[in-house]
Amino acid sequence: MSSIAEELAKKQKEISVSEFFERNRQILGFDSQVKSLIMGVKEAVDNSLDACEEAGILPEVMVRIERIDKDEYKVTVEDNGPGIIKKAIPNVFGRLLYGSRFHAVRQSRGQQGIGISATVMFGQITTGKATTVRSKVANEDVAWELDLIINTKKNMPEVLREEPVIWDGKPHGTSVAFYMNGRYLSGKQSVMEYMKQTAIVNPHARMIFIDPENRKIVYERASDDLPPATKEIKPHPEGLELGRLINMANETKQKSLSKFLVNDFSRISDRLADEICKKAGLDPGRSNIKLQDRKENPNGLSLEDFKKIIAALGEVKIMAPQTDCLSPIGGNLIRKGLKNVLTDIKPEFYAHPVTRDPKVYAGNPFTVEVGIVYGGDLPKDQPVQILRFANRVPLLYQQGACAITKAIESTDWRRYGLEQRGGEGIPYGPAIILVHIASTKVPFTSEAKEAVATIPELQAEVELALKICGRSLKTHLNKKETKSKTKAKFDIVQVILPLIASKSAKIVGKPVPQLSGTITKIMNVVWIDDAVVYEKGRHKVRVTLYNYTPRSQKLNLHMVVPKEGFDYTGLQIFPAEVKDDGKMTWELRSIPSTQKVDINFTLKGLDQEAYDENEIYVSGIDPVLVIGADPLPGDWDVKRLEITETAPAVAEEEEDEVDYDEQKEAINDD
Amino acid sequence: MSSIAEELAKKQKEISVSEFFERNRQILGFDSQVKSLIMGVKEAVDNSLDACEEAGILPEVMVRIERIDKDEYKVTVEDNGPGIIKKAIPNVFGRLLYGSRFHAVRQSRGQQGIGISATVMFGQITTGKATTVRSKVANEDVAWELDLIINTKKNMPEVLREEPVIWDGKPHGTSVAFYMNGRYLSGKQSVMEYMKQTAIVNPHARMIFIDPENRKIVYERASDDLPPATKEIKPHPEGLELGRLINMANETKQKSLSKFLVNDFSRISDRLADEICKKAGLDPGRSNIKLQDRKENPNGLSLEDFKKIIAALGEVKIMAPQTDCLSPIGGNLIRKGLKNVLTDIKPEFYAHPVTRDPKVYAGNPFTVEVGIVYGGDLPKDQPVQILRFANRVPLLYQQGACAITKAIESTDWRRYGLEQRGGEGIPYGPAIILVHIASTKVPFTSEAKEAVATIPELQAEVELALKICGRSLKTHLNKKETKSKTKAKFDIVQVILPLIASKSAKIVGKPVPQLSGTITKIMNVVWIDDAVVYEKGRHKVRVTLYNYTPRSQKLNLHMVVPKEGFDYTGLQIFPAEVKDDGKMTWELRSIPSTQKVDINFTLKGLDQEAYDENEIYVSGIDPVLVIGADPLPGDWDVKRLEITETAPAVAEEEEDEVDYDEQKEAINDD
Repeated sequence: MSSIAEELAKKQKEISVSEFFERNRQILGFDSQVKSLIMGVKEAVDNSLDACEEAGILPEVMVRIERIDKDEYKVTVEDNGPGIIKKAIPNVFGRLLYGSRFHAVRQSRGQQGIGISATVMFGQITTGKATTVRSKVANEDVAWELDLIINTKKNMPEVLREEPVIWDGKPHGTSVAFYMNGRYLSGKQSVMEYMKQTAIVNPHARMIFIDPENRKIVYERASDDLPPATKEIKPHPEGLELGRLINMANETKQKSLSKFLVNDFSRISDRLADEICKKAGLDPGRSNIKLQDRKENPNGLSLEDFKKIIAALGEVKIMAPQTDCLSPIGGNLIRKGLKNVLTDIKPEFYAHPVTRDPKVYAGNPFTVEVGIVYGGDLPKDQPVQILRFANRVPLLYQQGACAITKAIESTDWRRYGLEQRGGEGIPYGPAIILVHIASTKVPFTSEAKEAVATIPELQAEVELALKICGRSLKTHLNKKETKSKTKAKFDIVQVILPLIASKSAKIVGKPVPQLSGTITKIMNVVWIDDAVVYEKGRHKVRVTLYNYTPRSQKLNLHMVVPKEGFDYTGLQIFPAEVKDDGKMTWELRSIPSTQKVDINFTLKGLDQEAYDENEIYVSGIDPVLVIGADPLPGDWDVKRLEITETAPAVAEEEEDEVDYDEQKEAINDD
Repeated sequence: MSSIAEELAKKQKEISVSEFFERNRQILGFDSQVKSLIMGVKEAVDNSLDACEEAGILPEVMVRIERIDKDEYKVTVEDNGPGIIKKAIPNVFGRLLYGSRFHAVRQSRGQQGIGISATVMFGQITTGKATTVRSKVANEDVAWELDLIINTKKNMPEVLREEPVIWDGKPHGTSVAFYMNGRYLSGKQSVMEYMKQTAIVNPHARMIFIDPENRKIVYERASDDLPPATKEIKPHPEGLELGRLINMANETKQKSLSKFLVNDFSRISDRLADEICKKAGLDPGRSNIKLQDRKENPNGLSLEDFKKIIAALGEVKIMAPQTDCLSPIGGNLIRKGLKNVLTDIKPEFYAHPVTRDPKVYAGNPFTVEVGIVYGGDLPKDQPVQILRFANRVPLLYQQGACAITKAIESTDWRRYGLEQRGGEGIPYGPAIILVHIASTKVPFTSEAKEAVATIPELQAEVELALKICGRSLKTHLNKKETKSKTKAKFDIVQVILPLIASKSAKIVGKPVPQLSGTITKIMNVVWIDDAVVYEKGRHKVRVTLYNYTPRSQKLNLHMVVPKEGFDYTGLQIFPAEVKDDGKMTWELRSIPSTQKVDINFTLKGLDQEAYDENEIYVSGIDPVLVIGADPLPGDWDVKRLEITETAPAVAEEEEDEVDYDEQKEAINDD
């Protein structure tokens, strides 16, 4: 028996990381010919965009795919980034688990130090050919060109050729060219689709694609503003794990426990550090904070001490993480990006995109953004299209395994105007749902970075953002439906009744009676009509309220308006309240029966995309009387205005608002 | 600009593999407290079962979970395996990407050299505590006990304590005990469910589980036979990649191209090697077969030469891989395993399990097995339960991302008697579908080994196996339904008609007429009734054919019978044909109207589970005349018997058979 144990022991050996992935290519996403090509393009483009943004350069990325043989392609990706210095090139392109972005706590596309080297490796495995990298750094005269492969047994690069070359007209940049066994297809999962979706979430990038038929497609920039550079931050203490705390304490250069907490973490002030130490029963000034060890460090902190620190961190209130480690796209640019790329679909409606405040899972800040596009030429009887993004990178595969999909499936879309059997699963209808997760550490289910793991904090935030955006969709659909119905009724009442009246009057030889009282009795609504017109750099907004009820009416009118563009000059009716986030309220204390009130204002200096549909709510009036605006949602938190004393300010909450609030609470409790 | 490039270069550094997984725990499946506990148990049990089987020991594995604190558990897994020699312990348990099974081409549970070390790592990260390993090798006096942790920066083990201990009553074996932050739940995804499913597909293992409430559950062995030990084979040339071929050629110890092909690969004979060389235009005796290199090896094989070899390999006919590198469970043991564990459900039917012949994807042999359980206390109005297994390990998570699920979803189960909207998606009904994929290299979608990647060859084989097993289910359901319907008709006709006849005869004072002619005219069927009885180690099989048609009938009766148990002694009607796979055909040349024929035979020396329902088909007769047996499927490939000349031997194929054949061809074409 011992000889078996000996035998087994003899077979034990180390596995090199590149050897591991060479044999487990599906883990890196190189498991089919179609996918391999997309993966290769994606890894190279991710690197180009990251490099440009880190160097503050507006990216211009060119992708060219050439067919070399039956199933062999050459892929070239060229950027205008800062370039890579010659001696760094081999490791960047020829060594797995090597990179600059893994240890940094900030949002970037590449995080693992695997992607581009894996591409080089699969190029070489499937075609036997080396990858050619050419790179030029700004103040050098020449570019360097290297042919390289990976030694998979050692996980080390081998340079087959290196020489200086003149790169005409290129001040700086990098180009990588690899050969790969693959299959080029168009369709839902394709290089083209990847380029299109990349353009949507990177509206500041100019993307050029030359396909195997030598057709050139250019996605021009929708914006000339680079996203603000993301800053590296210290780990956030929320959800910190014991092991990481001990590692950090063992390696810190800080001289005391208190200084360690303040300087090695985000969002811990001196005062808070003292509070944490007090709760943990430890001296803030304590200098030996490495883990105790009977022989080598008998006076260090014990395991129990570290557990107490973790417990104390859970008890104190810690500010949310800084937002500058993250680079969300932002509502306007999401809309711009979508409009820029989806022109051929001519959607009827772009829902107001949602960008959530950053939250934290296991010490990693993240934020969620959602946009919804509706109508136009989108197919009505098919599941909605889902566009998933992580750190501005489109996710094309493994939709079923992704937390984004699970969040969409567990949302009841019937409440937001989409078809959905049983209120579960992917909804049907002419819509595109875009979800972007940005984080200093996106928890992908595998190194292929195709799906986001179902981390509870993350999935809950996605669900919340979907519901908020869904509400904007629902508001639009409600408005559309009720207006079209009521319009028909109006036309009948306002055209037919007067006709009957005048005919009858004529017959009996009496004067035509005053009908507005009768009409209001039949209609019994406050009709709200609105419009946005964009002209000469200005948005002109009109909201008209007609009182077709037999009594005088009073109400609060609420709108969400980009405050920075609001023009007070020449304003006739001033809002009674303007909040920081652009939530405005007008008090309309009396609209006499059969009369109308106009609210007009102008927005100036905004992009056209920044405002294209009014979001209008009412309170202080029985909501069933109102056509053209929804009752104010329960979470609006407006100052209770005078008018609300005579009538309920907040309409009875709909079911979905209740859920929404519960969920918000549940998350706040975490 | 160059300073930016310099700056970026400075940040580049190596990432240790354990550091990588420490920060990407979701990739290893340690992304929730519930899952972490299951993963830890699973990795330890996988190792125990592999070690026992490699050493030829019938496994006995004990898992104990104790609750230490609010969310801290201690997990102990103890086996009766061969033990691990002391000096090998640290690397096995404390180093990621280190192991004995990665480089071997044969089926085993552990393949990656990651799992158990990851468990040690997450135990230590979440609780700060070391893992204790105790192991005893057979002919040593003492066991060794080590406390160890992983240095994640270096990916190397650190031993905190090691000492010899006396392990009472234990001749050999290993126990591993780790602490982990987790949450213990019961239910569909739980340690208990993992243990249960492990017992199903490892009927030779005795599994003991002691839960946190100290309740002990024992899964006794359903079989005392160890699965045949899997043998290591050379890579199979089918689907071989250029990169791997070049690597192998560069490293071979063989002296010629021909010897290299014959000795470094499976299934290449001298003759075939010559044929390959000829097709590639290369000399079989050529000695320098390393890759050409201008400087170092100018006379080696060129890239083009290697490509020609790959092309030639694609053109010649290569035998399927040896089967002894794989360890399928086998139909009988699948049934036994299921019966052993599912006793409380009392299923009405266990479909005849299917074990497919090995196929190859990218040079890796694999085989697929499918079993279906139907009825009993299984819920009727819910999606069927799917049990997924890879190399005898249950897969509990990521069902949606798995090729097994995709294969089930794309099968039209309506044809096999299950409910399914639109013939797509997971079917509904009182059934459990078990799928086992065994391979020398299971292509998991991530290191967590939760789902199998959708490799086309693999998914197609699963679909095929599902259809074959589905047909067995359908045969059962058809038989059940038509029999119960016809039975009612029979009862009426055979009881009521004679009553009427005798009454009428009495009234008119005439003799009771002979009714069998009338009855056959009304019935107009050949009624096939069958039974299997197991007594004293023998299966007694009876098939009775009643000819309730007005004419004499002839037909072929086909059955699938375990040939090895078929007893020819005392047999009255001999089968006209017996094929190797147990397909038997009886020619019944004449069954006179109103007469019956009995076919009786005995099977001896088989387990009771080996045969519990007759699978009966007919040909050579209009299938609408037959009740109690299905028409012979098109793929049976029986010798055309004489009788078939007068009537079509093969009944018109049903739609699903056609699909099935098309698919089979498609696969053969690959």
